[in-house]
Amino acid sequence: MALALSLGRRGQGRCWPNPAVGCVIVRDDRIVGRGWTGPGGRPHAEPIALEQAGELARGATAYVTLEPCSHHGQTPPCADALIAAGIARVVAPLQDSDPRVSGQGFERLRMHGIEVTTGVLADQAARDHAGFFLRTEQGRPLVTLKLAGSFDGRIATATGESKWITGPQARRAVHGLRARHDAVMVGAGTARADDPSLTVRDLGVTHQPVRVVVSRHLDLPLLGQLARGAGDVPVWLCHGTGADAERIRAWEGLGARLLPCAVRGVQLDPHDVLRQLGAAGLTRVFCEGGSALAASLLAEDLVDELVGFTAGLAIGAEGLPAIGALGLGRLAGAPRFDLLETRALGPDVMTRWTRALREE
Amino acid sequence: MALALSLGRRGQGRCWPNPAVGCVIVRDDRIVGRGWTGPGGRPHAEPIALEQAGELARGATAYVTLEPCSHHGQTPPCADALIAAGIARVVAPLQDSDPRVSGQGFERLRMHGIEVTTGVLADQAARDHAGFFLRTEQGRPLVTLKLAGSFDGRIATATGESKWITGPQARRAVHGLRARHDAVMVGAGTARADDPSLTVRDLGVTHQPVRVVVSRHLDLPLLGQLARGAGDVPVWLCHGTGADAERIRAWEGLGARLLPCAVRGVQLDPHDVLRQLGAAGLTRVFCEGGSALAASLLAEDLVDELVGFTAGLAIGAEGLPAIGALGLGRLAGAPRFDLLETRALGPDVMTRWTRALREE
Repeated sequence: MALALSLGRRGQGRCWPNPAVGCVIVRDDRIVGRGWTGPGGRPHAEPIALEQAGELARGATAYVTLEPCSHHGQTPPCADALIAAGIARVVAPLQDSDPRVSGQGFERLRMHGIEVTTGVLADQAARDHAGFFLRTEQGRPLVTLKLAGSFDGRIATATGESKWITGPQARRAVHGLRARHDAVMVGAGTARADDPSLTVRDLGVTHQPVRVVVSRHLDLPLLGQLARGAGDVPVWLCHGTGADAERIRAWEGLGARLLPCAVRGVQLDPHDVLRQLGAAGLTRVFCEGGSALAASLLAEDLVDELVGFTAGLAIGAEGLPAIGALGLGRLAGAPRFDLLETRALGPDVMTRWTRALREE
Repeated sequence: MALALSLGRRGQGRCWPNPAVGCVIVRDDRIVGRGWTGPGGRPHAEPIALEQAGELARGATAYVTLEPCSHHGQTPPCADALIAAGIARVVAPLQDSDPRVSGQGFERLRMHGIEVTTGVLADQAARDHAGFFLRTEQGRPLVTLKLAGSFDGRIATATGESKWITGPQARRAVHGLRARHDAVMVGAGTARADDPSLTVRDLGVTHQPVRVVVSRHLDLPLLGQLARGAGDVPVWLCHGTGADAERIRAWEGLGARLLPCAVRGVQLDPHDVLRQLGAAGLTRVFCEGGSALAASLLAEDLVDELVGFTAGLAIGAEGLPAIGALGLGRLAGAPRFDLLETRALGPDVMTRWTRALREE
């Protein structure tokens, strides 16, 4: 199952709005088939693994990281494919939350005499599929927030200097994380200050995540890296409903996709921003700041995973903070995260956290 | 040698102004004697280990973490004791920087036909003895700076709430670090805001480090924890030469030791503060903030080691920063540190760093 999960993660970032599933078929302690969801969500993992296994699938065990689908979508149901191939046992950690599947896949397998085991590595599977589940259940993608800065939590000096606080190993890890998400998202301030390309580079990855900029007024440079490359790698702009019509036309002309979002107070409503991105199909969004966007997501409890890259230097209180004002009253109300991992990454420290369960 | 170094570290925090030395005597692949510097610096590690070894010392190898002393101080020279015991070989990582020893200990051993090997684990030994070396060479103690806060580098909320950001495991580690230093040091703001006791608790440690408060005007509560306990555990106050005479008398009456320091600009000169602490015998100082004292030490490149405790929560930009203003111009001028270690400590992350060598 660990192998199936690891195969499944290979599809992350490239099969949205479908889940990134992995499948391993084992016959007599030998692996006879492996598969993971293809780009755009097709083909599914199971038929790929079954085709590899061929006749050896008869009587074998299939390890699948999510309940096999039971409905006729753009592909025939995977449950039927497993039945037809003569699979004897299916091991899957979790039931699908898609109402068209939700328990019916397992039911169908059992009806045909296939032994079904669930719950194996369910925590890891739940984390891998969290984006897909969040979108089907809440209509929004999973949000991973990146914080890269000095050990006193600063992302730039008072004069805006930020290149490079963290080292090449951390930057490489960031590119890897971009590739594992459907989209990379930044606020307008970061887009103006850094003129980032937000693409995946130097990893031999051919697929690029969507680039999302959250900008109420669309006051973004029309000659920057995003504007220049909008025809090649998708650029989506979340803007306020009152944004200037000429800017909207200009960006449409450059090939960007415009997503009007609700305004709340002086900024875009982060709930509506994520709702629009979910409606457009995204399941996993990697937010790379700036401090205002990070704060607005954290304040609304919309950050699911957090990745920190900490460099061994101090910038001091005049520096730009990684997280803007949260309007926190008591310490007990602070957004909290559970530690998943910490390790050295060249000269820097990488830490990974996941949202803590709130005690009510 | 690794064992000798580990034994030597047992004396850290309790044998100042002397170095915390460890000694292991090995005969025919068996350990026949172990010793480390006693409280207050006496007895030295070598005579303790030699006494344990007794007649077995003849022809044995002595692993000593620092060059054995060759002068008559308050104890007879350890080099002579090793010679008299018939030791055949001495392995020591480093030469002592004390001008009364510096090479003469090794010279004396060689003159008496003892084989001397140096350089073994010299980096680790240099780090262990860094406080002793800094004091003999530069007249100041080693400074370890502790930063404990949220992952966005905040040590308290806007309203000053700071209990508890980090968990019990991190607090326990802090008590362990206090015990390994000669003194614990805070700024006046922290002394006023937190009313800390700054003692080592719950570790079965009988010895307490000196408690140092840096306060230009001596505007510290006379009824707080430090004032109440000043008769039991030493309290040293670094104050400006212009501090109020009545306050000075009050603190002297409570049993505190007063250390007048030079003022530079609006604050105490951190160089002179450390010079005074070095002159008073301290070799290792553990600074626990607050942000102004941390910043003044960092800005003057006076922080040798840094220990971070990072909790999984965000406080936001209104929170109190761990490090105050540094007056940094370019990013290239930021104080930089090399990573020694990162690991999970309960729900928090501990990172240890050491000052990076500056490229000129």
